[in-house]
Amino acid sequence: MRSVEDYISRIRGADIEAAEAAKRIQDTLTKPPGSLGKLEELSVRLAGAYGNPRPSIGAKTVFTMAADHGVTAEGVSAYPSEVTRQMVLNFASGGAAINVLSRHVGADVSVVDMGVASDEDWPGQIVNRKVAMGTKNMARGPAMSGDEARKCLEMGAELAVQAVQGGASAIAIGDMGIGNTTAASAITSVITGKTPAEVTGRGTGIDDSRLRTKVSVIEMAIKANSPDASNGIDTLSKVGGFEIGGMAGAVLGAASSGVPVFLDGFVSGSAALVAAVICPKSVDFMIASHLSVEPGHGYVLDHLGLVPVLDLGMRLGEGTGAVLAFSVAEAACKILVEMATFDSAGVSGECE
Amino acid sequence: MRSVEDYISRIRGADIEAAEAAKRIQDTLTKPPGSLGKLEELSVRLAGAYGNPRPSIGAKTVFTMAADHGVTAEGVSAYPSEVTRQMVLNFASGGAAINVLSRHVGADVSVVDMGVASDEDWPGQIVNRKVAMGTKNMARGPAMSGDEARKCLEMGAELAVQAVQGGASAIAIGDMGIGNTTAASAITSVITGKTPAEVTGRGTGIDDSRLRTKVSVIEMAIKANSPDASNGIDTLSKVGGFEIGGMAGAVLGAASSGVPVFLDGFVSGSAALVAAVICPKSVDFMIASHLSVEPGHGYVLDHLGLVPVLDLGMRLGEGTGAVLAFSVAEAACKILVEMATFDSAGVSGECE
Repeated sequence: MRSVEDYISRIRGADIEAAEAAKRIQDTLTKPPGSLGKLEELSVRLAGAYGNPRPSIGAKTVFTMAADHGVTAEGVSAYPSEVTRQMVLNFASGGAAINVLSRHVGADVSVVDMGVASDEDWPGQIVNRKVAMGTKNMARGPAMSGDEARKCLEMGAELAVQAVQGGASAIAIGDMGIGNTTAASAITSVITGKTPAEVTGRGTGIDDSRLRTKVSVIEMAIKANSPDASNGIDTLSKVGGFEIGGMAGAVLGAASSGVPVFLDGFVSGSAALVAAVICPKSVDFMIASHLSVEPGHGYVLDHLGLVPVLDLGMRLGEGTGAVLAFSVAEAACKILVEMATFDSAGVSGECE
Repeated sequence: MRSVEDYISRIRGADIEAAEAAKRIQDTLTKPPGSLGKLEELSVRLAGAYGNPRPSIGAKTVFTMAADHGVTAEGVSAYPSEVTRQMVLNFASGGAAINVLSRHVGADVSVVDMGVASDEDWPGQIVNRKVAMGTKNMARGPAMSGDEARKCLEMGAELAVQAVQGGASAIAIGDMGIGNTTAASAITSVITGKTPAEVTGRGTGIDDSRLRTKVSVIEMAIKANSPDASNGIDTLSKVGGFEIGGMAGAVLGAASSGVPVFLDGFVSGSAALVAAVICPKSVDFMIASHLSVEPGHGYVLDHLGLVPVLDLGMRLGEGTGAVLAFSVAEAACKILVEMATFDSAGVSGECE
């Protein structure tokens, strides 16, 4: 398996020339300049990622990465841990929201067990990359070892690269893991410098009392582990999760392949923070699909300098917001490729 | 042709029972309640419009209605009037943004000449419902007669009903007409009670000086015509436009057929205001697809009590935002129809 450093070495930033050419094309199309708003901005960003001023998106893959979290022992979630395993089976049966929405937009769903606390034999379509049976309780010590952190990054990167080699032209990342907004909040606090209270929300829907517990558990985890904010692998190992590592790896893998990676909500956003610390240039390949209602997500996107495409009040994860943004991104690319110009259509420009 | 009153008599409000049943279904699906945000709210609204707790959207038609505006004589637009005609030909050739986005989401585009100031023979696919060669200059007198206002309402309603009879299960309305944000601003000011300065924006992209002209022209038009805000036909005739009347009619026609109608931006929103004054129950069938950057659009949606699905910084018209929302609405319906329940998937619910 290739190393994290090997993926980093292959990541170039966006192609500025292609992006500028796309911007110039937009201004020749039969519409007032800028009147398609975020569709235009997205088309320019995608042109930069693809290195092509007239990009088109073909096959699309969403990786829904699942893992369990030892920190659930502290009572941070509204749902029991076994829901992670049950939802993996639901993904395999095609009955979860990510399945429905991926069918709608024509994306493939790849469900990856990065560390679910279950030793059952999965149905064949579940990709087994289990690092361990869930992380350790980060409130009492590191969530995982440094080697385990590298392992999930490298496996995630490899999966993304393999998907691109198999024909995928856009990657999305999504998560499933009871307890994982606790890890995401801890990572976000460490990397953005915001306090745990600022970045922590209700996850699947906890009440005020459990929210106070969650914040103090995150404070405890950061204090117990002293993660190094300038070291993505250290932060991931101290307060992260296996699916978060897998998603961060998928970001690096997609970026190393010159393919855009559609972030989902808060948990995938925390993975993007880890990837950005490991390789700042990877940010050029990130598309912020939507703004989650989790309060930490806005801080994540601000830190990354990203503007979300959609704001649908979602907070499910799985990649659900990311696959909806696939469709908007395809529309944005088609505008660049298919629209007539003022010249070609014989339409008059602005009055002098 | 059926009369406006005939359409009104056929409009029932939303089916509250179907909407409540959809809400109950949402809470059984394998996701934390409410975690799909606006997708859930939209599915409930669509269930109410269709009278079906598990609706599905099949064929979709967007009416892009075009007309010219005599008020352009006052210098209110950045583009010359002939662009309306040129863009109709661009729609016919498939090169405009509405064509590209409609192909992307699988919607049919029906381009309707409601009053373009050109007597040329259109290509066959352009629907000719021309009321006159553009409106009169509303700054100097009524934009059209009361009979003309009724005529465009009735023709728009008939087109929507015919589309539904031909298989369309969702209708969208969009506009093309140089000068029509001036008419839309006047209507919005009259019906919402906001001042012209509050509701008037830059349209296709006018500068500060032209914006001041536009506001004073609208003030003059309202003063010269004294439109009756409680009378939709009077307001439409005094300060409206033929495409605005056609779109307002399409709202009434869709509502009378029990089919949702997807509004686009500010100009179609002003048509929705007219329809809402004529028949308040028609609002139950309106879907606010997106929030335009035109400042008046927020006032329109507030007045109608609607929350926009998308916010993409768009201000093009044509129906472009509406067809993007078609895709989100289909996704919302599929969630209701295709997702597994906690029971069926064997997934545990929240902890006690």
